[in-house]
Amino acid sequence: MTTDLNNDVSARLEAAKKDYAALLEKNLKLDLTRGKPSARQLDLANDLLGLPGDHGFRAADGTDCRNYGGGQGLPELRAIFAELLQVPASQLLAQGNSSLELMHDSVVHSLLGVLPGAERRWADEERIAFLCPVPGYDRHFDLCQRFGIEMIPVALTADGPDMAEVERLVSEDAGIKGIWCVPKYSNPDGTTYSDETVRRLAAMTTAAPDFRIFWDNAYAVHHLTDEEVQVADILSACAQAGNPDRVFVFGSTSKVTLAGAGVAFFGSSEANVKWLLGHSGKRSIGPDKINHLRHVLFLRDADGVRAHMRKHREIIQPKFDVVQRVFGKQLDGLATWSQPKGGYFVTLNVPDGCAKDVVAKAKEAGIALTPAGSTHPYKDDPADSVIRIAPTFPDMAELEQAIDGVATCVRLVGYEKLTRNG
Amino acid sequence: MTTDLNNDVSARLEAAKKDYAALLEKNLKLDLTRGKPSARQLDLANDLLGLPGDHGFRAADGTDCRNYGGGQGLPELRAIFAELLQVPASQLLAQGNSSLELMHDSVVHSLLGVLPGAERRWADEERIAFLCPVPGYDRHFDLCQRFGIEMIPVALTADGPDMAEVERLVSEDAGIKGIWCVPKYSNPDGTTYSDETVRRLAAMTTAAPDFRIFWDNAYAVHHLTDEEVQVADILSACAQAGNPDRVFVFGSTSKVTLAGAGVAFFGSSEANVKWLLGHSGKRSIGPDKINHLRHVLFLRDADGVRAHMRKHREIIQPKFDVVQRVFGKQLDGLATWSQPKGGYFVTLNVPDGCAKDVVAKAKEAGIALTPAGSTHPYKDDPADSVIRIAPTFPDMAELEQAIDGVATCVRLVGYEKLTRNG
Repeated sequence: MTTDLNNDVSARLEAAKKDYAALLEKNLKLDLTRGKPSARQLDLANDLLGLPGDHGFRAADGTDCRNYGGGQGLPELRAIFAELLQVPASQLLAQGNSSLELMHDSVVHSLLGVLPGAERRWADEERIAFLCPVPGYDRHFDLCQRFGIEMIPVALTADGPDMAEVERLVSEDAGIKGIWCVPKYSNPDGTTYSDETVRRLAAMTTAAPDFRIFWDNAYAVHHLTDEEVQVADILSACAQAGNPDRVFVFGSTSKVTLAGAGVAFFGSSEANVKWLLGHSGKRSIGPDKINHLRHVLFLRDADGVRAHMRKHREIIQPKFDVVQRVFGKQLDGLATWSQPKGGYFVTLNVPDGCAKDVVAKAKEAGIALTPAGSTHPYKDDPADSVIRIAPTFPDMAELEQAIDGVATCVRLVGYEKLTRNG
Repeated sequence: MTTDLNNDVSARLEAAKKDYAALLEKNLKLDLTRGKPSARQLDLANDLLGLPGDHGFRAADGTDCRNYGGGQGLPELRAIFAELLQVPASQLLAQGNSSLELMHDSVVHSLLGVLPGAERRWADEERIAFLCPVPGYDRHFDLCQRFGIEMIPVALTADGPDMAEVERLVSEDAGIKGIWCVPKYSNPDGTTYSDETVRRLAAMTTAAPDFRIFWDNAYAVHHLTDEEVQVADILSACAQAGNPDRVFVFGSTSKVTLAGAGVAFFGSSEANVKWLLGHSGKRSIGPDKINHLRHVLFLRDADGVRAHMRKHREIIQPKFDVVQRVFGKQLDGLATWSQPKGGYFVTLNVPDGCAKDVVAKAKEAGIALTPAGSTHPYKDDPADSVIRIAPTFPDMAELEQAIDGVATCVRLVGYEKLTRNG
């Protein structure tokens, strides 16, 4: 490093130290950890709170939604989300309040039951592994860890997972039973899989006959720009490629209506749906159909969902703009960050070896960030460089303070490192 | 058999044949299979359909119930059911809409995780068996069968399971990991366990260190008479006997408020609750707290639940009276049946070897009964004598027809058998 640059970095470090001291004095208590909707976003669905009210309790076919039964979920709600999740209504199940539950249970039923196409239960396999595109979603990784499923990281590119690597791994290793995918506006990168990626995932040769794509389409309708990005229809692609049972599609209204009181969906081939219903039918005498009815009355149709999501965008797009503006002003040349067109997160890439220190410094200053490493299997980000930023929950004033504070921490840790290595 | 009796039986058979021919001509289509509340019972909770409405979405502690979180469930709802389910609120979880789900998941987590006190996961045991008091609940047995858990029937006496037999089996056989119990107004017998039975279940020596009582208190507040039967507090009994982790308590509002849109509960020792939360926290980011809030606003307190249950009793007690009256008139001396003081079922004991034939004859006549054998593990009632009658769902006129029809079928099959064996 030349002396000029050294002086420049030293000066920047001094400025960062000063700003950090000022940050500490603010005694903040701000939280950027989880992808939670804000109260203003939840307010958009407050009409749900009084439904079905006087609209009664009957489904379109006359079913009394108050009673037991109807394991597939309310047909009219499944019809609304069939279009949005690219799954025929007859192959789409509406269930409880959490798609994570459906992912968990799909793994459990694969472990303790025999999947269509499987030779045995996963619990009876010597070894089970899942491919994990990184950076990815910590709760997916936690599920693997909890069930002793080995995680193999693969790089997430601008087009989705590194398909050459994915194809090589799944063709060679019969222990690889699945891959986690957040195909649109991925958590945390905002990446949307290209059509070519979807086609290759559907068509690739897998050594395991019971390989499954866990297609967590969590942000199917969660746009942040006028360009409402589309992802190719994986279920059709799998069927066309002669692998009809390859994909489990998941989605929910958690970030459409109410995060804790929404409806989750599972879609797949007829064989997989029959398989899941066979197991879930032993577990429950049907989902909460009144909550399904509530959602039908409130959302009306797929266009109703799209219109509702534009109201969310009005609230959260300015928050994502804050992140871009503050990082652009403070971190240019020091860090990089994603510019998502949808979803709930911004990925911040700090200089290698700095992520943990940044999160620690932010914590000291009262700003809670998702722990560094959370975006990787076993919480291990080998480069220690990825930080997930969740800007939706705080209000605008708090967010500005928090993002500014995070940027200060990045400058402090980053310039310190540059000085040390200088 | 003397000639007089023979003549008598022949005459009765002829009368039954005539009545059955008349029954066939009615072309009935009636269903006595499942313990479902009727529309009139569900109407009692219709106020739920508009809640929380203008009452807002905040818990007593200020929590926004619309958002993620709160894995234990709403504290004020847990407080209401703590008293009714005899579990301290701090050890009681409020979850989704089905207690069967919680039983299923408790088995799953025991199979795939290590229970407090266990040496290994149940999935890693060579053999797992559950004791099944008979007659019992088919969905309990289905869960065992689905997970390859061996079922060992033990007789249900007027005081609960045959405790001498239970104590002998669990003390000798370390493969026995659990027992299914419906301790109050049991399904289908209506039996309530005596205090002595509860004490012995809590105190008995088990060869398995991780033995669990699955205490399905489904009918905790579901009285049919002025004598509101109490069952001893099993959780305290277990703690006092030095076996604090022995029992999982389950309950729900499915037959209190809305069968498909109620709230289910899990209660146990601190260690077991922590264990379950550790697993359920990987599965979901919290239950539907809005539905919890809805139930708090509607039920108010434990007395509110009791008052609500008296309205149910007003509707269903006359239906149980129909069963007693019709059976008493037609089946005296030929069959016996339970006279439950609560719950949802009457057990009809027909002459040995007749239950399947009765169910088949009823089916021919358009009356659906739970398949004979359903009350026993592997659907195998060795005496072929037990039929479960579920009188709550049909209206009074339909019920009278259906029960009269069942009695006709019992007379037809029973007297035919007596004639053959005569």
